[in-house]
Amino acid sequence: MALASGVRFAARALLRPWALLRGTTLGRTEPAAGGGGDGARRFGSQRVLVEPDAASGVAVMKLRNPPVNALSLELLTELVISLEKLENDKTFRGVILTSDCPRVFCAGLDLTEICGRNPAHCAEYWKAMQELWLRTYLSSLVLVAAINGACPAGGCIIALSCDCRVLADNPKYRIGLNETLLGIIAPFWLKDTYVNTIGHRASEQALQLGSLFPPAEALQVGLVDQVVPEDQVQSTALSEMARWLAVPDHARQLTKNMMRKATADRLLRQRDADTQNFVSFVCRDSIQKSLQAYLEKLRQRKG
Amino acid sequence: MALASGVRFAARALLRPWALLRGTTLGRTEPAAGGGGDGARRFGSQRVLVEPDAASGVAVMKLRNPPVNALSLELLTELVISLEKLENDKTFRGVILTSDCPRVFCAGLDLTEICGRNPAHCAEYWKAMQELWLRTYLSSLVLVAAINGACPAGGCIIALSCDCRVLADNPKYRIGLNETLLGIIAPFWLKDTYVNTIGHRASEQALQLGSLFPPAEALQVGLVDQVVPEDQVQSTALSEMARWLAVPDHARQLTKNMMRKATADRLLRQRDADTQNFVSFVCRDSIQKSLQAYLEKLRQRKG
Amino acid sequence: MALASGVRFAARALLRPWALLRGTTLGRTEPAAGGGGDGARRFGSQRVLVEPDAASGVAVMKLRNPPVNALSLELLTELVISLEKLENDKTFRGVILTSDCPRVFCAGLDLTEICGRNPAHCAEYWKAMQELWLRTYLSSLVLVAAINGACPAGGCIIALSCDCRVLADNPKYRIGLNETLLGIIAPFWLKDTYVNTIGHRASEQALQLGSLFPPAEALQVGLVDQVVPEDQVQSTALSEMARWLAVPDHARQLTKNMMRKATADRLLRQRDADTQNFVSFVCRDSIQKSLQAYLEKLRQRKG
Repeated sequence: MALASGVRFAARALLRPWALLRGTTLGRTEPAAGGGGDGARRFGSQRVLVEPDAASGVAVMKLRNPPVNALSLELLTELVISLEKLENDKTFRGVILTSDCPRVFCAGLDLTEICGRNPAHCAEYWKAMQELWLRTYLSSLVLVAAINGACPAGGCIIALSCDCRVLADNPKYRIGLNETLLGIIAPFWLKDTYVNTIGHRASEQALQLGSLFPPAEALQVGLVDQVVPEDQVQSTALSEMARWLAVPDHARQLTKNMMRKATADRLLRQRDADTQNFVSFVCRDSIQKSLQAYLEKLRQRKG
Repeated sequence: MALASGVRFAARALLRPWALLRGTTLGRTEPAAGGGGDGARRFGSQRVLVEPDAASGVAVMKLRNPPVNALSLELLTELVISLEKLENDKTFRGVILTSDCPRVFCAGLDLTEICGRNPAHCAEYWKAMQELWLRTYLSSLVLVAAINGACPAGGCIIALSCDCRVLADNPKYRIGLNETLLGIIAPFWLKDTYVNTIGHRASEQALQLGSLFPPAEALQVGLVDQVVPEDQVQSTALSEMARWLAVPDHARQLTKNMMRKATADRLLRQRDADTQNFVSFVCRDSIQKSLQAYLEKLRQRKG
Repeated sequence: MALASGVRFAARALLRPWALLRGTTLGRTEPAAGGGGDGARRFGSQRVLVEPDAASGVAVMKLRNPPVNALSLELLTELVISLEKLENDKTFRGVILTSDCPRVFCAGLDLTEICGRNPAHCAEYWKAMQELWLRTYLSSLVLVAAINGACPAGGCIIALSCDCRVLADNPKYRIGLNETLLGIIAPFWLKDTYVNTIGHRASEQALQLGSLFPPAEALQVGLVDQVVPEDQVQSTALSEMARWLAVPDHARQLTKNMMRKATADRLLRQRDADTQNFVSFVCRDSIQKSLQAYLEKLRQRKG
């Protein structure tokens, strides 16, 4: 049961034709699905839609990599660039991270980035994943995750690196790090983030069991800060943002850094080794065969 | 709202004329307000009233620096001396820390000690603050905080360094580290103490937001161990003390040391750097201007 | 009160004649009390009964050192050997640890191993204790504790080093580290395990107070994962086991190692010093006198 939704989402992600065909070049002009036609002033890249509100100093950043916001190399890169732009623009003090895809916040890693790829590509992909975590976890902006869909694995990484998390009360919108159920393991820095958020014992269990928590359990274990009806996720995220923006930026930023720097430094001290570990792990014949069989099974199910 | 009570108390503290006029000399004979006329045997300094009960081995130590027990250099010094006396007297095994001032356990730092003072004075003041924390956090005595009033910032430091905390159930008696709301940040050793008490995630939020918890929330987050009606704070503190005194001193002291030594050692290893950080931070023009403006505003409000 | 059950069990353990008379030789053929006459295929040593179920890959390991499963040097050694055998047999993926003695899971250290013994014996005993913890805490197998009786001190060590804990709902079956009440202190690696399981603040209190938690409190503080009626302990343990075995072994084992290795490494780095500390502590005249007086008192009570 625990794996079901994660697998289903991954399946759809992996089966989108362009995902299986595309290369790793960034900045291509592939049209994003579901482009908004409304009149709001928006900017952003293909896969990250940014809706800035200069008056409040808050921008809404929407992941738009349909159907399930799989974390492709492009999406990772665009997320980092979009965040950097907002951090360098003194107009903005906070960002609400949410999904533009229905029913999914973010399905996690894009397995096609590591299946059948050469070590150099896998390394590039993993470095982008590290970079996204480092940038979000230590961002000087207030980051609020408005989790309006399922949030497994890599989706959970993004949510965990925010300052607070609001989850829509839908039993299908589960959140957690379910890596073990796919036969892989979370990197140590993600484990550290889990421990910082829900404590050692809960992490020990959840990481080993690959638990995906439905909303009520996610709230109880401390993985999210609020669970609200689906149509109140955005407004609640804005209310939360207001609480955080009531604090003077400088003192808040220094305090955030004091709380999180040691955890980020652990990765910075051994970033290359972590990349090497990841690459040598996923490039093993046994893991590649598992991933291929997994993808094949998903294609047949879909077919 | 969160700042309200803290600000109000600080205002009163800062506005007492003698606070603004007095120097830093210790041991002055300035009369303490509200000196008790009852017949109990008491000793102590001007600002710390000690009521010893040799029969039980427990002393009650009352902070008496009206109106809000602002942690002046004198009060810090007298607290350390009073504690040391009791530790050196084998008659005593436990101390109940409480306030002699109505409605306030302790309002925190005395801002007049760092506003408009030279770096040497600020350094002396900060070292006294470190010393109080080190002595209380590692005290061989059982320390029970009977929190009979508001307990922000520095008041919370004192409470957190005790072995257990009993809080009066009055919604105005809030407790927490609200430094960020004043534009300043808690030192790392206080952050460590917070994390040790309420965990990493709760600390991350509460420290950044400068949360002051009302009694029920303080109990839930683990900041205090019991919340009881105001007239039962002392008796509950005594009951708690009895539980702790039921344990053989030597085994309890070694265990306490095992739990807390690493945290204290982190400060001991970098005490000078911590002092230097504090001094250079508070002596910045921007911070001094903020403090002056803040004090001025308080005086005008009072006026 | 808190000490009552622990003391009572220890008393009975210490009073069994063979415990007071026997030497330290391993592998003696002293008949185990209550040897089973049923037809199940079983193996194991005198004091550890192993009931393997090759079909499920799960073995039940029963402590059988009546009357209270005191952790004698023989029991410690046999536990390690039995566990090692199962780890080396690829048939097995999980072990359920439980007691064959009524009303007691395990009463903890066998004080006769450290009272009136020479330093070399005390050192040997302590190394066996460390070894058991290291082996169980880092075991590649899934370990589920089916706690069907009182579980103080050393019993709690065994339970804490498992992957999950199911406790029978009997108010007499309390669990915790009550060392301080006996005038001794838990070693740092056991403190670390406590902190990993129930957090820093709860550990600080429970370790100092020597708290033994009845089932409902043990569940609330996080010391056990489930509390069920006594006749459902084994079936619940099996259900829990099934959840853990649903995870691919390799990913689960690597994740378990990632969570626990740092804690185990702390002991490995200073194992000799830890042994030396223990030996010099228990060989003190004052501690030996306390232990002797304690044993004497128990014998008189029994008499």
